[in-house]
Amino acid sequence: MTTIDHLGIAVKSLAAAKAIYEKLGLAVSPEEVVEGEQVRLVMVAVGESRLELLEPTSEDSVIAKFLAKRGEGLHHVCLRVPDLAVAVEKLKQDGVRLVSDEIKIGAGGHRYIFVHPASAGGVLLELAEDH
Amino acid sequence: MTTIDHLGIAVKSLAAAKAIYEKLGLAVSPEEVVEGEQVRLVMVAVGESRLELLEPTSEDSVIAKFLAKRGEGLHHVCLRVPDLAVAVEKLKQDGVRLVSDEIKIGAGGHRYIFVHPASAGGVLLELAEDH
Repeated sequence: MTTIDHLGIAVKSLAAAKAIYEKLGLAVSPEEVVEGEQVRLVMVAVGESRLELLEPTSEDSVIAKFLAKRGEGLHHVCLRVPDLAVAVEKLKQDGVRLVSDEIKIGAGGHRYIFVHPASAGGVLLELAEDH
Repeated sequence: MTTIDHLGIAVKSLAAAKAIYEKLGLAVSPEEVVEGEQVRLVMVAVGESRLELLEPTSEDSVIAKFLAKRGEGLHHVCLRVPDLAVAVEKLKQDGVRLVSDEIKIGAGGHRYIFVHPASAGGVLLELAEDH
């Protein structure tokens, strides 16, 4: 089944952004730095989904550039799909614009690809494999 | 339990925006017009959550103004909470900025309130009651 895996939200300050979710009684993970992406993040558990709050650790980070251009807010929506290769094949056949043509492999073997916002109502859409 | 009820996404064309979700095999509702909000919408079922694709039916609609200012993209995130009155009381005590002070009642008795983006990492956050 396809589900919302997480929403990536770009913020200037993790401490400020996570406060409201703690007040709502949601479980907020400890802060974690992802060097490759130049971000510090926390995950907020919301039902079967998560909110990923992303604070840049460098001015060169993709998230820092997003903040400079758009300000704080939603950066991407990640859907977890049962079979990523099948989904990507179908989207390619239908001419959907992908950010890169190939499925990438991230931390922990996590497989993902990004659909361009032009093909998804202005939302940067990440597709990740259910596992 | 708190869950993501839906993501509201402002789009110029429902027909174009819903295509990608149909290609991913997700169930897309028939189009529905909400006169009070001056929008035409479809709901896309994604696990326990939904994507609400919103196309304006008038240039005066909140969604039309959002599109003119920001372009297509995420308009709001709606979390479904177990007890809205308790959540709002807690947020008010903690000085969280709400768009309006009072809980509103929408179609079908649905109770909701909006948290200002300044208090939620740049995201317009709707809280709705679990029911």
